[in-house]
Amino acid sequence: MTSAEKRGLLIVFSGPAGSGKGTVLADLLRDDSYRYSVSATTRAPRPGEVNGKNYHFLTREEFEARVSRGEMLEYTEYCGNYYGTPKKEAEEVLAMGKNLLLEIEVEGAYNVKRAYPEAVMIMLLPPSYAVQEARLRGRGTETEQKILERLARTRAEVPAVVDYDYVVYNREGEANQAALDIRAIVRAETLAVRRNADAAEKYFEQ
Amino acid sequence: MTSAEKRGLLIVFSGPAGSGKGTVLADLLRDDSYRYSVSATTRAPRPGEVNGKNYHFLTREEFEARVSRGEMLEYTEYCGNYYGTPKKEAEEVLAMGKNLLLEIEVEGAYNVKRAYPEAVMIMLLPPSYAVQEARLRGRGTETEQKILERLARTRAEVPAVVDYDYVVYNREGEANQAALDIRAIVRAETLAVRRNADAAEKYFEQ
Repeated sequence: MTSAEKRGLLIVFSGPAGSGKGTVLADLLRDDSYRYSVSATTRAPRPGEVNGKNYHFLTREEFEARVSRGEMLEYTEYCGNYYGTPKKEAEEVLAMGKNLLLEIEVEGAYNVKRAYPEAVMIMLLPPSYAVQEARLRGRGTETEQKILERLARTRAEVPAVVDYDYVVYNREGEANQAALDIRAIVRAETLAVRRNADAAEKYFEQ
Repeated sequence: MTSAEKRGLLIVFSGPAGSGKGTVLADLLRDDSYRYSVSATTRAPRPGEVNGKNYHFLTREEFEARVSRGEMLEYTEYCGNYYGTPKKEAEEVLAMGKNLLLEIEVEGAYNVKRAYPEAVMIMLLPPSYAVQEARLRGRGTETEQKILERLARTRAEVPAVVDYDYVVYNREGEANQAALDIRAIVRAETLAVRRNADAAEKYFEQ
């Protein structure tokens, strides 16, 4: 039984601003066994964003039509725009035995977990709130107002970690360690008996 | 928060004859973060066995006295002899933040899980029963009677895998992969939110 013969894992990946999700995802995606789910959204593309790569950009009507046809694995509305995960792509990736990474906010994460209880929920955190704040200010690219908004959001969202399965810390200069931790989690989950309830049967049959 | 500041994991490690437990344990024990628990037993030492290394060899009276003083983490009687895990050593290792490997039969494993619900239960299996049988016969060191006994025991014990947390396969020439799998499991378990219930609190405090 190789992992290629098995359905991939659905991995929900959340983390506050400054947790370094992008770097960790990029590291994981260098490995062929991982795929990234491109979200659909109704918000306008930002300069440089490519349709089908950064997001699937949809009109509000098209998005709602897809929801009503049951074509979204999950979706949420945030700041007046819809964000969602197309179900068909996700199912195809999982059926190929690839692990699907969904980078998603806490509310969307809960929606995924309800629809896919077998999803693995991982929260990526900076080493501490103090470090996170220093990182956000250190970027020097955002207004004080924006930074305060992000920190307020963090205070609201991080306590949801209790409903996640794993917490991974992204320490200074150790994004690679966070990616290694996620690989370890994924390997362990594929070996979990609750995902291999037929292990004894298979053992004697083969 | 480094793993050294945290209590180590108690790892229950079971596997039928021919699963290659010894090789996998030896690989893990090359890493300073792992310790092996030397069992106590009332059976007679075999040629070459060293007291305190292979087993703590005790008289029946001494063993029973230790049990009655609550000094055994678990014990079982098997073929007329007691086998048990000294509690004090185990506690010291865990308090040091080291991961303690208990190589133990299924019945003893259940006893450990009852006493230490936080224990991680891992069953090591050959790729299949057919391969296991071939391995046992291939050794050429045991009587047919002994081989049949071991296989009967396997048929009785492997179904208990459903009560374990993880199943790890030890494939031909891949003992190192099995050890890597166990390292991944241990890493993942240390990141499990259920072992880090105070993650959010710590995040904001530090």
